[in-house]
Amino acid sequence: MGITALERKLRASWRRLQISPLAPIIVAVSGGPDSTALFDALMRRGARLHVAHFNHELRGDESDGDESFVRALATGRDLGLTVGRASTAEAARRTRRNLEAVAREQRYQFLLATAQAQGAQWVLTGHTRDDQVETILQRLLRGTGPEGWRGIHEVLALDDEVRLARPLLGVTREDVLAHCSQYRLVFRQDTSNLSDRFTRNRVRNELLPLLRTFNPRVDQALLRAARLLAEDEEYFRVTVAELVRGAREGASLDVRGFAALPRALRRRALRQWLREERGDLLRVTGAHLGSLERLATESEGGRYVELPGHWRVERRAGRIRLIHQADAAATIDGAEASKPTWPVAEENRERKRKK
Amino acid sequence: MGITALERKLRASWRRLQISPLAPIIVAVSGGPDSTALFDALMRRGARLHVAHFNHELRGDESDGDESFVRALATGRDLGLTVGRASTAEAARRTRRNLEAVAREQRYQFLLATAQAQGAQWVLTGHTRDDQVETILQRLLRGTGPEGWRGIHEVLALDDEVRLARPLLGVTREDVLAHCSQYRLVFRQDTSNLSDRFTRNRVRNELLPLLRTFNPRVDQALLRAARLLAEDEEYFRVTVAELVRGAREGASLDVRGFAALPRALRRRALRQWLREERGDLLRVTGAHLGSLERLATESEGGRYVELPGHWRVERRAGRIRLIHQADAAATIDGAEASKPTWPVAEENRERKRKK
Repeated sequence: MGITALERKLRASWRRLQISPLAPIIVAVSGGPDSTALFDALMRRGARLHVAHFNHELRGDESDGDESFVRALATGRDLGLTVGRASTAEAARRTRRNLEAVAREQRYQFLLATAQAQGAQWVLTGHTRDDQVETILQRLLRGTGPEGWRGIHEVLALDDEVRLARPLLGVTREDVLAHCSQYRLVFRQDTSNLSDRFTRNRVRNELLPLLRTFNPRVDQALLRAARLLAEDEEYFRVTVAELVRGAREGASLDVRGFAALPRALRRRALRQWLREERGDLLRVTGAHLGSLERLATESEGGRYVELPGHWRVERRAGRIRLIHQADAAATIDGAEASKPTWPVAEENRERKRKK
Repeated sequence: MGITALERKLRASWRRLQISPLAPIIVAVSGGPDSTALFDALMRRGARLHVAHFNHELRGDESDGDESFVRALATGRDLGLTVGRASTAEAARRTRRNLEAVAREQRYQFLLATAQAQGAQWVLTGHTRDDQVETILQRLLRGTGPEGWRGIHEVLALDDEVRLARPLLGVTREDVLAHCSQYRLVFRQDTSNLSDRFTRNRVRNELLPLLRTFNPRVDQALLRAARLLAEDEEYFRVTVAELVRGAREGASLDVRGFAALPRALRRRALRQWLREERGDLLRVTGAHLGSLERLATESEGGRYVELPGHWRVERRAGRIRLIHQADAAATIDGAEASKPTWPVAEENRERKRKK
């Protein structure tokens, strides 16, 4: 029978990622076919594994069943195991954020903490090529800009020390099932029908089959396009970081040259600066960024732009600056609260930084 | 009843395109609803129109019916009319090229010649927002790189003097039908089921309705993404043109610095140089460009790359150069034909340029 396609591809990405054979590795196992196959193939390579499982408590008994399954998998092989647990639904409700986004954040924090506790530099997850294609399509459908179309990254830095990698990103679901079948692996079936997972299931079972009637190689076509877009974004990332560095004056950004910039750079530079200042881009839409662009380029236009979460970007003397409205209101008296002045903003920045 | 949404949007794009109200304009009319509505709305604006129609002879009597319809439309309004005619199917067979591509080329040549004969600087066509969305999806399905996803350009230079514009690119098919209905316009229905048109019909009638069940605003999402990609490509076009200019040494390209370039630039620079040297990129695939990239970056790799149409790119002393094999074989004796030398290539370039 020989090794499976999954094992062959895992070996190749292992080499590409330059993971040392002796390095301790955190493997994230949900109990589904992809991560179970990854776990099995890593065991066969003789990797030094520590198993991590996060119970999002999203499917009651079924979630607990998954947890028990993974516990048995790890202890059966005498491996270290860390299990995390949190009510993702409650956290999402409390913060009024997207369920999948909260789940992902919780999982990443948990995986990072587990890696740090185990002194591991690598966390591996079981995302496959099918996940990749489905992600690209979902982002395309959702209206994400080109930045999002590139899909899932093969490697992601969780912090300065720990990297999360997806060594199965070149492996198809078919490869996974063939591997499970060859080695008679038992795995858990995810019956979830959470709204976001539900969309993904429809992408998988309705949309992709229709797309393949137009072009049987549409998966490859999307992957190729995503790869090219990732190259473009990598180029822009470096170019724009330099641009923002050059235009920064402390917390504010000198935008006097921005009207003459190509839009591809200008748009990204403003977003990048905003992300750095605000910490993230949560709930910031294309329309907000459009207003910000007008603020930066039209000296005749409005003097400020409101952003979600009581943020405001003000323009003065060719510079823009981000101000938190709550801070401003607390610092100056009521009558002035609607038009904060620079010194106030300066104080707020300072306070924020010290936190 | 007031003016229609189509008329309102036409007025806006007219202003954006800065078309003089007195300029003579060529309007391309197929006889279908889009171009008939465009023609009608332009008449209502009092534009100075000359009608152009190209008969591709693809649908026998129906094509002739379209031609008669457009003839009647123009003569009924006492307008100048030019009708072109060619067997597109035969031309495609003879040149073994894609039918739609040949049809487009014939149409553009015809429209340019008509504009020149009439001393017109503008050619207007009836492409709508629906055409735009369908084009983006078709290119996505076909595996076109990001360069193609941007979709149809609003303005295209046919030569240094004549520009082709699509003033209805913001108009939906619904707007077109509402306009036709308000003014009780008669138009022709295209019953064609050419393979490429057939795909487009399936995109329109099967794929788009399914996509809209995922996101009712998927049209806008795709258009937004296409607009952002167009901005990116415009930036790359300018940056890469400069890069190629700097690396050119006559017909050859100095690629010694190419290994250190970001891939987004390198890939486009090689394609741009090849397009300039070869005149076009017909039948050049992503795989060919991949080989060319390896030739340009790996000094240890192969010394040449074969391209369709008996072309070859050779690398020597850190430069690459395009050579036409038929020319090479004709110039030097048989034994040498498989490894042409630089002086031969130089001669070929000179001969080619003089043509």
